[in-house]
This record gives sequence, structure tokens and C-alpha cells, in this order.
Amino acid sequence: MNIQKPISIIGMGKCLPANKVCSHELEEKLHIPKGWAERYSGVKERYHRTEETSGYLGARALEEALNEAGIEFHDLDLLICGSATFDYVIPNQACVIKAEVAGGMESDVPALNLDTTCLSFVSGIDMAAMMMDGKRYQKIAVVSVEISSNGLNPENWETATLFGDGAAAAVLSWEPEKGGRMLHALQETYSEGAYNTQLKGGGNQYHFKDYPYNPELYSFAMEGRKLLKMAKTKIPEFMANFFTSLDIEITDIDLIIPHQASRAGIAIFRNMYDFKKGQIFENLETHGNCIAASIPMALYDAIQQGKLKRGDTCLISGTSAGFSIGGVLFRY
Amino acid sequence: MNIQKPISIIGMGKCLPANKVCSHELEEKLHIPKGWAERYSGVKERYHRTEETSGYLGARALEEALNEAGIEFHDLDLLICGSATFDYVIPNQACVIKAEVAGGMESDVPALNLDTTCLSFVSGIDMAAMMMDGKRYQKIAVVSVEISSNGLNPENWETATLFGDGAAAAVLSWEPEKGGRMLHALQETYSEGAYNTQLKGGGNQYHFKDYPYNPELYSFAMEGRKLLKMAKTKIPEFMANFFTSLDIEITDIDLIIPHQASRAGIAIFRNMYDFKKGQIFENLETHGNCIAASIPMALYDAIQQGKLKRGDTCLISGTSAGFSIGGVLFRY
Repeated sequence: MNIQKPISIIGMGKCLPANKVCSHELEEKLHIPKGWAERYSGVKERYHRTEETSGYLGARALEEALNEAGIEFHDLDLLICGSATFDYVIPNQACVIKAEVAGGMESDVPALNLDTTCLSFVSGIDMAAMMMDGKRYQKIAVVSVEISSNGLNPENWETATLFGDGAAAAVLSWEPEKGGRMLHALQETYSEGAYNTQLKGGGNQYHFKDYPYNPELYSFAMEGRKLLKMAKTKIPEFMANFFTSLDIEITDIDLIIPHQASRAGIAIFRNMYDFKKGQIFENLETHGNCIAASIPMALYDAIQQGKLKRGDTCLISGTSAGFSIGGVLFRY
Repeated sequence: MNIQKPISIIGMGKCLPANKVCSHELEEKLHIPKGWAERYSGVKERYHRTEETSGYLGARALEEALNEAGIEFHDLDLLICGSATFDYVIPNQACVIKAEVAGGMESDVPALNLDTTCLSFVSGIDMAAMMMDGKRYQKIAVVSVEISSNGLNPENWETATLFGDGAAAAVLSWEPEKGGRMLHALQETYSEGAYNTQLKGGGNQYHFKDYPYNPELYSFAMEGRKLLKMAKTKIPEFMANFFTSLDIEITDIDLIIPHQASRAGIAIFRNMYDFKKGQIFENLETHGNCIAASIPMALYDAIQQGKLKRGDTCLISGTSAGFSIGGVLFRY
């Protein structure tokens, strides 16, 4: 369904933990053959937090985005945190970020959390755009922050070498006079893949009270082959649905930012269509898969590197646990 | 901000665990003086799950709501799960409910999770109403399901006797020909109360890897007195903001369903305004505080008992961890 709303991204921010972890360090630490990480996951380096919290990383990213937007926190009408990981079970991460961001303590801006795992930023932008009307909601910030490094099983090389930590934020603004437009969005959830990606422990089914810590139960696990197979079948179906009512094709879009799921995942997508060189943006090699924070961090990097310019069209899209595919098309 | 959209609640559902726990049983089990639970918390009985999962309870509540609405799951445009507790960390609860609900496996309806703790149902209705446009979103289901009984510290009598488990669901539909209307909504987050309600363990700050289970760290805890003090100051401010653009007052509303936070919490609200007898709906005594599921279960009960009739105005409103107050005013 076309959205066609006069909404611009007026500010972006990003914050990484200080501790950069190169693949050879990780290989040494986890007794993984030298070169395996980069060859298998495509990740040369990623950031793993030491002292930083999700609240800290999220608040710093949001402050940079507000600064670029030229507004204060109290100018927002809503703060959405779209993330799969969190500092505490209660309160939610959005409230923690609000309590830590400059100006957050002094204002009553509503804060809420949204979770579609890796798609949480895309869903946050989609929901924000649908909710924005230039009246009640004129300015909404969406922050995604993930600390994945705690939930990695050191014996599962595939995930241990793939994931990283980080945060990014975007400020959306209702601006009929500016050129930014939210154009189109879609999400679909295919339940046959509901349990192909899991972090079982820590909820009510495997409660910490009854299930003491063990890395298998309390770490992220994915059935990589099944997921790649689902992606191969479902992405073309999803994209056909996405573009059915539009008068452009996927290859007409100026810049596409896929979720930085894995080297294999991005390659599958890249090979589905006849993309031009530079049309797909990647930062997997230098950041790893940062769950929901991957797409907005890549969007930030693309803008910084001049690969997405004002007036360009951009598609942010990815897959997520559950199993969902989502996408938002906008003019920057 | 007035919403004024032709949106009706066309179906409601509710599902409780089979195991009803009377206060005297709980007092015996936890060595609490006889009569303390009811006297202090106001709860005579609540339900604590045995075999039921959040996925099961949520799916059954949603099926009843779809049945009353006279539609199938695939007729929905979006499934929102608004809850603070969950079966698994990944995938999110919405995807788990979708995988369990009749018809969920066979359709691609998008599923997403929303968390504003106790306000999650209210926020879900608010967001759904803001997103609904009669085009992309014509029918949205909001499900709230909570299993709180796992996260209770048996040595903290206040919380151990207060909380219960349960689920409820509502189906919203864009129906210009029907009388239902979403009228008005507001949420505010006051960060000075960010940490007055906490479940610290299980996130990245106190990760299960480094912090073995202990009931204090891994149970819900609240600073009751501080919360009641915040409620006393902030609720009148919030309600003044809520009604400032409306031509009615809070006492003009046919039925008000507050979050069933605690006897003291409801009493504070009740005494703030000159309410008529029966204007405030309660089910705390027979259900306990079921976090986000309390308000929709009470809404379900009010409709079943004939206390909310078609054409009546209804305000659902409450406080939540973080610290937020929210409310949605609608004509049923």
C-alpha cells in the first residue's frame, strides 16, 4: 500500500562500543582456525561492548540524530526503540534510553518499545510513518540498539563470529515543504519459519528459575540452511507483492540497504536481481550482523559516505526471526 | 490530539489458565498470615499457569475475538502483541501467537510486538488506531498475554499476592457505517520514575551468564510508595492534558477501565474525581494485576456483564513501568 507522506529523515546518529574485535583475535580466543571467521561469515571486525549499556549507546546515537536535526529531545512527539535485546526486562529499553538521553529526564515525550527482531528499525519507521499525520505526530525518533555479544555461544562458531553490537537512530519529521517522502512499506510474517531462529532461555518457557545458565539454551541459535532456503523462496514473493502497486521496479531504486544478516544472505539477495554496481550497500565486513541496529547503522554510513543523497530513493529491507520480511521505500 | 476515526471493536476474547489460586492457598504456601493477601492487595483469587504457554493463552483469546468478529485470521491486516512477558526472547511473542492461532500458519499477516509494560494493550490500540486508514490497515488485532507468576519473588509478599496470569484480545475494524469511534488518545513518559519498577535480571545488564538465578534479581520489584506518590501527582496532570481539547470531562464518560494495578492504585484514581457508582470497572479481586492483560480482560468482562454497551463511551487508562501514563477514549 502506498503511503506517500511528506516525511523526511532530518537527522541520523550512530554509536559503537569502543572495543573493536578483529576476527583473528576472536579466532584466537575461541580456538577457531585462522581465517575461518572472515571466510565463513564475511566479517573482518565487529564491536563488542565492555562497559557500555544499551541505554548509553542508544542515547548517544539519538543525541547525534537530534543534533543533526537541529532539535531538542522535547521537540519529539514520540520515541520508539526498535530492538531485540535490552538492558533490563523491565522497564523497556525505550524508557531506559529516554532516562539517559540529554533532555529526556525533563520532558514527558512518550516512549515505547517495538520488537520484530532484526526488522525492528524497519518496522519502527513503517509504524512511525503510518502514525504520522502532521498533527499529533510531527516528529518521531526511532532508535535501534543491540548488544548481541552477551548472547553468543562460543562453541557455535557461525554465530560467535557473525554478530556485533551497536546503535543508530533516525529522526523523522513531517515536512510538506521538503523533498523527503515515505513512499511505500510492507511486512509479511511466514509462520512456517517461526522457530528457525531462537533464543529459547530467559522467557517463560525456559525460565531462569528452573533452567540454570547453559550456553546452548541461553544463546542465539539459527538453522542457517533452512533460513537461506526460506529467504530464497520468500524474498522474490515478498518483493513481487511490494512492487505490484508501484510503477518502478526494484532495480530502479537508487540505494538498497538490506539487513546485514550474513555474507550468504546478502549474496542470495544480490543475485536475485540485475542490480547495478554500488546499488546494494554493505557494512557487514566492518560491523558484523548487529540485529536491528544493522540497517540504520548502514543507512548512517551510506549517508556519511555520500552514497545516499537528498532526493535519492532508498529501500531498507530485511528478514527477521519469526519468520518475517519487511521493507520501507522512501525518498531521502 | 483527537483521532476521530470510524474504528469499531468488532470482537473480544479472553483466556485464563485453568489453575485458579485462592489467596488462602497462596498464604499457606508462602507462609503469609491468613487474610493478608486480600487485605493488602485486594486480590481474592488469581490464575497461575501450569502447562499453558503465553502462545497458547494468546492464541485462544485471539480465536474467540476473531470468532465474535465473524472473520478468519487471514482477514487481519496486522497482528500486534502488546505484552511485557514472553515465552522466548526470540522469536517475539506475536510470531509465537501467530504460529499457534488457527489459520496463522497458512497466512502471511504481519506480526509485531509492542511493549510499554502494563500499558501495552492501551498503546497497541492507540498505535493501531493511528495506523488504520481503511486502506492498508482495515483490520488489526491486539493481543495482550502475560505470565507473571514465574517472575514473582515468594519473599516479596506485596508482589507475590498481587499478580496473576491471563490473556485477552481485541479486533479493531475500520467501519464508517458502524457507530464505533476511536476518539482520543495520549501517552506521556515521566523519566524521574524510570526505575521505580524493575525486573533487573535477564537483560544485558545482569546477564544470566554472569548472574545466576536469585529471586531478588530475577523477580519483579516495585517501589510501591514512590509509585503511588507519582500516580497522585501525575495522573491529574495527565488527565488535564488528555481532556484539554475535548468538550467533555472525565466524569462524563460512561465507563472507565483503569489498569488493575493494585487496590491502593485504583482507590487513588477513584478518589481524584467525583465518579458515579459503577463508572469505574474493576476485576482486580478475581484476577489480580495481570500486567498488560488486565485492561483488555476487564474490558472483556465489562462487555460480557453488560456494563459497556454499544454506543457507550469508554476510557481505558493506566500507568506503567518507565514511568508512563496512557489512555485511549473510544465509543464502543
